[in-house]
Amino acid sequence: MSAVDFARFVNDLATRSGEAIMPFFRTAMTSHNKAGDGSFDPVTEGDRAAEMVMRRMIKETFPGHGIVGEEFGSERADAEFVWVLDPIDGTRAFVSGLPVWGTLIGLMRGGVPAYGMMHQPFTRERYFGDGQSANYAGPDGSRSLRVRTCASLAEATVMTTSPRQFVPADRKAFERVEKASRLARFGCDCYAYCMLAAGHVDLVIEAGLQSYDIVALIPIIEGAGGIITNWDGGSAASGGRIIAAGDRRIHQAALAMLNG
Amino acid sequence: MSAVDFARFVNDLATRSGEAIMPFFRTAMTSHNKAGDGSFDPVTEGDRAAEMVMRRMIKETFPGHGIVGEEFGSERADAEFVWVLDPIDGTRAFVSGLPVWGTLIGLMRGGVPAYGMMHQPFTRERYFGDGQSANYAGPDGSRSLRVRTCASLAEATVMTTSPRQFVPADRKAFERVEKASRLARFGCDCYAYCMLAAGHVDLVIEAGLQSYDIVALIPIIEGAGGIITNWDGGSAASGGRIIAAGDRRIHQAALAMLNG
Repeated sequence: MSAVDFARFVNDLATRSGEAIMPFFRTAMTSHNKAGDGSFDPVTEGDRAAEMVMRRMIKETFPGHGIVGEEFGSERADAEFVWVLDPIDGTRAFVSGLPVWGTLIGLMRGGVPAYGMMHQPFTRERYFGDGQSANYAGPDGSRSLRVRTCASLAEATVMTTSPRQFVPADRKAFERVEKASRLARFGCDCYAYCMLAAGHVDLVIEAGLQSYDIVALIPIIEGAGGIITNWDGGSAASGGRIIAAGDRRIHQAALAMLNG
Repeated sequence: MSAVDFARFVNDLATRSGEAIMPFFRTAMTSHNKAGDGSFDPVTEGDRAAEMVMRRMIKETFPGHGIVGEEFGSERADAEFVWVLDPIDGTRAFVSGLPVWGTLIGLMRGGVPAYGMMHQPFTRERYFGDGQSANYAGPDGSRSLRVRTCASLAEATVMTTSPRQFVPADRKAFERVEKASRLARFGCDCYAYCMLAAGHVDLVIEAGLQSYDIVALIPIIEGAGGIITNWDGGSAASGGRIIAAGDRRIHQAALAMLNG
């Protein structure tokens, strides 16, 4: 199967998962506490419905492929091709009615992120890439994605989902970068990485991510010319503490400051 | 002129201002520092273009009305009818590419907020109200807006644009409410108040607002059955420190905690 066919299949996954999710967006809904320790981690019926749809489509089309999903765990995770799915990344945004959650569809080949899409079904935006290039398709047309240059932290816009997500030491580290940067913006989960790929922001810093929170975004950011690693400078594909930058100079400067 | 005609005129203002703004959204743009003290307060060309369009339309249609706008100041602010305009509320979201900014169009009559609209031109959402009722029109259809009930802070979702917006004493006050609530969500400016009116979140707490940041939102929140005041429990129309709630019990509980 060619890269073009993969791209078409991912578009189909996005369309069908979006159809499964949208009836649950901005409706009263039940959510149960997956974390079970008093913290609030909403899981919606839409999340489950969308992952079921995508798993079925993948199994029908690529029975030999593996699947790792947020809701229903791993199958054949050692296959050459493994799909990494997060039907609703940004569940807090979702339950609050905000259109900055997204469906993350990633494809790993031989353990390396090879293709990824972020789909926002309400705004009908798709950000997708294969590590070599990245593109956008939305209500305002289609275009290629390209990070912007940014010479120094003092000129950088930095985003994170919430300053509350960090353990105390990491929070101090984040705040060092925040203080050195021009502008900080909170909220947005996966949406932040796509704004970075599109050249609207310069830096995204997060912690506590799962692989399904980030795999799909790596080929988009790298395809747009950006860099994404963990805080140790290694592969971001396993999640954990993540830093993405549009400009390598900012990545290096922020990484030094995070580990300073 | 009837209320229906006012509603139609406000819809026209929204359409025309949106057309003026959208060419500037997600494009490289210059912004200059209005605050002038090293803090970052982006002002876009879109902001200015949209306010110019709205001012011209208002002067042509209602030459006796007053206008208060973020960009170009006040004219006839003592008139019976005064329009209160913020073409891009959420400029930081705007320059970061996020679709959670909005155009705020408010109408005061005799010093009291009488009609308001929040328009998001990218998502094509309109939230509007007259204090008696409030409605939504968007890509997914039209419906009336209604706040949700919420008996206690422990069940509440609270939103604020950024925990960094508060002076230290107010930040401590906000954090008391945040700790007592179920879920906190950052980012979103005017969008947060509309999510409250639509019954997706329970509480919005902010500080340092101008009248043009809030006047348009008051008839929407009150029309949806919510309550919005300053932290002293008085009118929110002058801006400052603002608290909005969908349920009066939460408003009372949070107000006590803010002032505790």
